[in-house]
Amino acid sequence: MAQDKSSESKTRRPRAETPKGFRDYFGAEVTERKAMLDKVAEVYHRYGFDPLETSAVETVEALGKFLPDVDRPNEGVFAWQDEDADWLALRYDLTAPLARVAAQYRNDLPSPYRRYAMGPVWRNEKPGPGRFRQFYQCDADTVGAPSVAADAEICAMLSDALETVGIPRGDYVVRVNNRKVLNGVMEVAGVLDPSDPTRFEAERGIVLRAIDKIDRLGEGGVRALLGEGRRDESGDFTKGAGLGAEQAEVVMAFMAARRDTGAATVAALRGLVGASVIGGEGVAELETIAELLDRQGYGSDRIVIDPGVVRGLGYYTGPVFEAELTFEILDEKGRKRQFGSVSGGGRYDDLVKRFTGQSVPATGVSIGVDRLLAALRAKGRAGGEGAGPVVVTVMDRDRMADYMGMVADLRNAGLRAEVYLGNPKNFGNQLKYADKRGSPVAVIQGGNEAEKGVVILKDLILGAKIAENATLEEWKDRPAQVEVPRSELVAAVRKMLGQ
Amino acid sequence: MAQDKSSESKTRRPRAETPKGFRDYFGAEVTERKAMLDKVAEVYHRYGFDPLETSAVETVEALGKFLPDVDRPNEGVFAWQDEDADWLALRYDLTAPLARVAAQYRNDLPSPYRRYAMGPVWRNEKPGPGRFRQFYQCDADTVGAPSVAADAEICAMLSDALETVGIPRGDYVVRVNNRKVLNGVMEVAGVLDPSDPTRFEAERGIVLRAIDKIDRLGEGGVRALLGEGRRDESGDFTKGAGLGAEQAEVVMAFMAARRDTGAATVAALRGLVGASVIGGEGVAELETIAELLDRQGYGSDRIVIDPGVVRGLGYYTGPVFEAELTFEILDEKGRKRQFGSVSGGGRYDDLVKRFTGQSVPATGVSIGVDRLLAALRAKGRAGGEGAGPVVVTVMDRDRMADYMGMVADLRNAGLRAEVYLGNPKNFGNQLKYADKRGSPVAVIQGGNEAEKGVVILKDLILGAKIAENATLEEWKDRPAQVEVPRSELVAAVRKMLGQ
Repeated sequence: MAQDKSSESKTRRPRAETPKGFRDYFGAEVTERKAMLDKVAEVYHRYGFDPLETSAVETVEALGKFLPDVDRPNEGVFAWQDEDADWLALRYDLTAPLARVAAQYRNDLPSPYRRYAMGPVWRNEKPGPGRFRQFYQCDADTVGAPSVAADAEICAMLSDALETVGIPRGDYVVRVNNRKVLNGVMEVAGVLDPSDPTRFEAERGIVLRAIDKIDRLGEGGVRALLGEGRRDESGDFTKGAGLGAEQAEVVMAFMAARRDTGAATVAALRGLVGASVIGGEGVAELETIAELLDRQGYGSDRIVIDPGVVRGLGYYTGPVFEAELTFEILDEKGRKRQFGSVSGGGRYDDLVKRFTGQSVPATGVSIGVDRLLAALRAKGRAGGEGAGPVVVTVMDRDRMADYMGMVADLRNAGLRAEVYLGNPKNFGNQLKYADKRGSPVAVIQGGNEAEKGVVILKDLILGAKIAENATLEEWKDRPAQVEVPRSELVAAVRKMLGQ
Repeated sequence: MAQDKSSESKTRRPRAETPKGFRDYFGAEVTERKAMLDKVAEVYHRYGFDPLETSAVETVEALGKFLPDVDRPNEGVFAWQDEDADWLALRYDLTAPLARVAAQYRNDLPSPYRRYAMGPVWRNEKPGPGRFRQFYQCDADTVGAPSVAADAEICAMLSDALETVGIPRGDYVVRVNNRKVLNGVMEVAGVLDPSDPTRFEAERGIVLRAIDKIDRLGEGGVRALLGEGRRDESGDFTKGAGLGAEQAEVVMAFMAARRDTGAATVAALRGLVGASVIGGEGVAELETIAELLDRQGYGSDRIVIDPGVVRGLGYYTGPVFEAELTFEILDEKGRKRQFGSVSGGGRYDDLVKRFTGQSVPATGVSIGVDRLLAALRAKGRAGGEGAGPVVVTVMDRDRMADYMGMVADLRNAGLRAEVYLGNPKNFGNQLKYADKRGSPVAVIQGGNEAEKGVVILKDLILGAKIAENATLEEWKDRPAQVEVPRSELVAAVRKMLGQ
């Protein structure tokens, strides 16, 4: 298209669009998320956790991406250079800011420091369907508590939080594993040398990734990856970890070590890690966690020891946990599948060390807010639209004060109400507006009604029902339209709302 | 300092600091703000406003700062270039995103569209004491309603919101003015020519700034600025608007036009704007607003017509309003002063026009969240610290399961409780921790108590009082320490908390 550039630049209008990968949230989307997070916060508060709201903007170096040699250190984060040459960036999670806070305020914060944080994070990644570049996280962490009692507490709190927001017991399970046990297994399998932790790093990486693929590849596929390697359907070859059959057997046995009770699982794991010191530590930690939770009444219907939890094991240093929703939903192709993970966490060292040089133990959990909200919607447990306002229509532009007096009366009685503020000429538009607003009742007062001192109330919910298929009884019992004295407006609306 | 650069770069630790001008919010700071905003949202909801949460990131062109000729279009905003060359930026207010949303979703949104928004905004400005580069705003706007009934509604809602969060009637006033009246006055004073609105622009700017300075300069100073100009104490000369005495008198009379009742003020303004068409329109609008509010019961103890409201008049196109807190506080130098403005707004056109080319009327209000919160704190109306958790101390590391069972019992009874998770060796540290947490009660169970099946409860609030100056009666009435059976833990803690 040939265009006159100069006139184009004068009249050019900005596009009314969010940047790619960003979105807006309207009405019930905001309300539902807020209601869910409020309930989670209530549980966290009862556990003694305090809210922390950090700045959305951090220095890039605090985020741990400080690379002085590159021109623009923003792989994965949104970053820009400040006027005094500092690189700033939007936080990409809530853990890095916690580390910075724990270091910055280490002399003022209670120790251990329990905090929760809820808010948006930003990822500079390729957006995709349902994959946004700004999304909410909801984290709880304990900094400065070395004991696995802190991990057990997080697991119990996660379980309570899920039930409080509306996931019934039986529809979820918190699965607990321990990175140290896996290290012990690696040792027994001969791919970890405690005297030289850097040896076999590549092999361990392959083993971790193989374990993580069990659901997709099955036992045979994982065995191939633990051994020489695997050629997939497209013919591509993935190099394996090169483990012998006996070595691979240790790893396979680890993945299958879950038993009916925590005690039995712990016993099986103890057998697997053999003489490995780190493995023995990990098993003892799992045993303690299981005992602490059991004594608080968190049985295997809520929290289980499960060696199958591997996701993100590389990042953690001790116990790891994951909350999985076990009910089935239909995916976009109409196939049944389990809802899956909505939360994960674990113990991680070196949180604060990067800033202060001193090691500070920490453990915590992160809830995927959008996924949990989707789960509540799937279960019909989210708040839904909520009640629309009573709409007072405008029959006579000159009597706006009367109409506003009506909404004032309704609001003062605690009812949600608004007067129609568009062009009142076309009455049909006013009812269409009320419909769009999800309004339960329309209030109408024309000149005749005003003279008689009455108002007409239109029951829009019943009206819609009648239009569809309400029975005569329903109609008689609760007429879709009534005339009441103006002085009885509030009482009559209340009655129509069934309050 | 001579330093080995290469070793420095290897061991260099990031600074644990927020970027300049950014800050963190802890505990009660988060809770208090949330409680206040929840109350405001409740009022907005009752008025039929729906929540809207837009992306924090917008394209620079949507923010209205699109300047293709400059290398980095981020004057005042934090901006960066996306990988596909788009400039993105953090929103600097909640109005520009509303304009974008109103344009983007114009076929789906109800019209008029009432929405509220609460969230952080970012300003790339020099930070100063108490002046941050990220702060909260809380806005409510009605898009698509040309009638001043929409403006009146916003004023009533603002008044309700202030009272609901805890500003008592009498401690605030919502002041209403109208940009059109000022234009009428400018016309009468001869600095606005309706047939050529660009004439006298510089003079009008000087007049506006002069009016805005009445508090600081007094009548004489303003008169000087309306006339030839003014030399201040330092000897600097500010050029005046060059109005003759009669012209200046019109402006001075406008500023002094507030009377005891809205009707009297309106009458005074009507006299001042004379034959000006735009001025007459403005006066009629103020009259309608006054009448609508009066009929809803918002008298001059809450909302007044006040020509003295000038701040930001340049931006608005019709009614403007401002909520002022009228009680006195002591400033940092111990001098009494009025708390001042906490909210402002008005009617503004061309909100959506920039995107669509079609004019869409809009009116709205913005609450300065931090200022209103500061006011509530000054009045003792903010939530304060809130109750710290009951702290269960650890006398015997091996009985952690017992201690966690105690906190579980307390939590299940709805009480806020936590077990001490630090190193339990030094018991004094545990009580210091409880103190830092604002804990009301410490629970203690050593070996002896465990054998006897009892726990010791320490009343930390009374304990602190006794340490200061509690009377003997208080001590007898409510001993600072009791021993109770383990089975009565919850009941006894409840009693100690006075529940």
